[in-house]
Amino acid sequence: MEDKLIEKIMQEVSKELQAPLKTETARSNGTQQQETQTCQLTEFIGTAMGDTIGLVIANVDHAIHEKMGIDKKYRSIGIIGARTGAGPHIMAVDEAVKATNTEVLAVELPRDTKGGAGHGSLIIVGSQDVSDVKRAVEVALATVERTMGDVYANEAGHLEFQYTARASYAVEKAFGAPVGKAFGLICAGPAAIGVVLADTAVKSANVEVITYSSPANGTSYSNEVIITISGDSGAVRQAVIAAREVGIKLLGTLGATPQSLSTPYI
Amino acid sequence: MEDKLIEKIMQEVSKELQAPLKTETARSNGTQQQETQTCQLTEFIGTAMGDTIGLVIANVDHAIHEKMGIDKKYRSIGIIGARTGAGPHIMAVDEAVKATNTEVLAVELPRDTKGGAGHGSLIIVGSQDVSDVKRAVEVALATVERTMGDVYANEAGHLEFQYTARASYAVEKAFGAPVGKAFGLICAGPAAIGVVLADTAVKSANVEVITYSSPANGTSYSNEVIITISGDSGAVRQAVIAAREVGIKLLGTLGATPQSLSTPYI
Amino acid sequence: MEDKLIEKIMQEVSKELQAPLKTETARSNGTQQQETQTCQLTEFIGTAMGDTIGLVIANVDHAIHEKMGIDKKYRSIGIIGARTGAGPHIMAVDEAVKATNTEVLAVELPRDTKGGAGHGSLIIVGSQDVSDVKRAVEVALATVERTMGDVYANEAGHLEFQYTARASYAVEKAFGAPVGKAFGLICAGPAAIGVVLADTAVKSANVEVITYSSPANGTSYSNEVIITISGDSGAVRQAVIAAREVGIKLLGTLGATPQSLSTPYI
Repeated sequence: MEDKLIEKIMQEVSKELQAPLKTETARSNGTQQQETQTCQLTEFIGTAMGDTIGLVIANVDHAIHEKMGIDKKYRSIGIIGARTGAGPHIMAVDEAVKATNTEVLAVELPRDTKGGAGHGSLIIVGSQDVSDVKRAVEVALATVERTMGDVYANEAGHLEFQYTARASYAVEKAFGAPVGKAFGLICAGPAAIGVVLADTAVKSANVEVITYSSPANGTSYSNEVIITISGDSGAVRQAVIAAREVGIKLLGTLGATPQSLSTPYI
Repeated sequence: MEDKLIEKIMQEVSKELQAPLKTETARSNGTQQQETQTCQLTEFIGTAMGDTIGLVIANVDHAIHEKMGIDKKYRSIGIIGARTGAGPHIMAVDEAVKATNTEVLAVELPRDTKGGAGHGSLIIVGSQDVSDVKRAVEVALATVERTMGDVYANEAGHLEFQYTARASYAVEKAFGAPVGKAFGLICAGPAAIGVVLADTAVKSANVEVITYSSPANGTSYSNEVIITISGDSGAVRQAVIAAREVGIKLLGTLGATPQSLSTPYI
Repeated sequence: MEDKLIEKIMQEVSKELQAPLKTETARSNGTQQQETQTCQLTEFIGTAMGDTIGLVIANVDHAIHEKMGIDKKYRSIGIIGARTGAGPHIMAVDEAVKATNTEVLAVELPRDTKGGAGHGSLIIVGSQDVSDVKRAVEVALATVERTMGDVYANEAGHLEFQYTARASYAVEKAFGAPVGKAFGLICAGPAAIGVVLADTAVKSANVEVITYSSPANGTSYSNEVIITISGDSGAVRQAVIAAREVGIKLLGTLGATPQSLSTPYI
């Protein structure tokens, strides 16, 4: 009877708190988004974890083209946005542009993660054909859960690792990474941990640092250090894995053992 | 007895959590601020929802004038600031400057909303007479609840809509909107939704886009797209209403049906 | 028995919520961090309240030196970073560089505080000798609890006050303050309160304003106004204390009486 009471109370409390609490906690976003709600609007494609939404505009108004600074030849645009996640969404769109006839027009990184240390995202892809952008958005949405796999979080912050054997145009647009080469991303918040991970990565394998971003340079004032690396695919992967091992230990000193938001893929 | 127990526990839990939880949830700010506390300082005018505070300095120290970049002829300044809300406060000050002999000296938009997707605000009005700025701050505070009426929120984000048949100097200062003409503001976070709302608005009526802001351009890295529009009052209102309808549906796909923070006015 | 049940339920609720809640609430960070976890990595030095972590790299990789824009003569670097707190960490590092043979290489202020109104921090110190930077990080970590003493918070925001009779190189690096002179920092979020505190401070004693920062100028879009002052030590202290008195009253109008995060030292 006591247990039943506790359960009843937990329900009351949950109702009162309405979801936003668990933002930075592992796994929460995953579960939360599973009961995706539907929407009859033709612009709506779907949602994914991290408060990710995928949208299309079949025929963009020219006034909006102009204000967005987008060439009018992209009659249709696809929009992928999230409250939590920048790297996972860039990687997901990278897969999407590989699979479709679309171009990445903009990658913008708000300071977000709902009170966390990192970024959300707003990514625009364009095409002359609405079916192309629709397909790109669908692929991106379907890929986000995978690219969230090496995001690890606890109550003090998060770590993010990405790896691809062959970078495409989203990664090039966002980080200036060479297309067709192996690419890795290493990120930690609080930023202090990221400094050590950057050093760990470059010491553990022969990789080239493409970008190094910190709170005041290259991020949107997020509390992260992010490095992106390029090189031989084995070396990039090794550098990412070495950083991941150290990162989980360091972030763990500030709280619980960091947990993957979905399923690690690297 | 069980219910009494649950109530007692909910009180304990509430105490433990101390308010900040409900930030992004509809209505919470409204209720929270109702028991406004008093303060004997002459600088204190009052508070309003969204952690809004209204203050005056009767006789600003010249060192502060200089550091703020404010002309010394504005002997008295009024200060309206909030953790949650930028548009509502700009609109409220717009009403305040219509009603008083004051000028809008600064509109600054911190990245805030207590973990939400948007901005807080810091707005400075000036005058040679303390009674003018005091009155302006009082009018602004009294107006915030109304201008929060078309802010809608759920656990995933928020929407904001504003409309006035006749823009004044706060709206001009903040967005470069033409004074005396109808003005509308459409905003959504996550930003992806705002892109669709911008397109919806310009397609639904013959309006002119004044500004288009996104995470990396024109916002303080907030996770919002904000457009402001001008034109015939009927057209502006129609565009805002069309965007509102679409916005509520789209944000609703990421969580609960978005709720107004007070009472819709448009 | 009822009390025991409540306790049990509170434990369940706490487990569910996992810490992040209390961020902005007084004292929480202090308690939370007390059970510092250990870590075998040589880079790890320790943690402190505010999700502060202290790290060292004994022998920085040259690729990282270059990307960080740090002279290669600083073979070893110390890293102090936090989710919550910028001023307290700058002051703590100021003590650390007084006590050790290190130099302050970078002070970066992410927009953070886990949904609060302010900044986190990333501070880098350098030396040719790892034992020097290790010692500096240890001193900084040991000092953070003290420099958090005049940080006051409630559910609506926070206040921060700092004072030293003799500023050193961290304070010079961060604010351009004259080394060896008395230095004070006054900060409030929401920013509106900070405007009044700035005016209060300069009116209450004969001090010189070094910097005045607001959401759009000099902060990382935080919802704060921060002034730093210099002058005669008695005057600086008096100005800080006068501002503190007013700040506690004003922030208190938006919620509970603001509480020190540890023990006031000024």
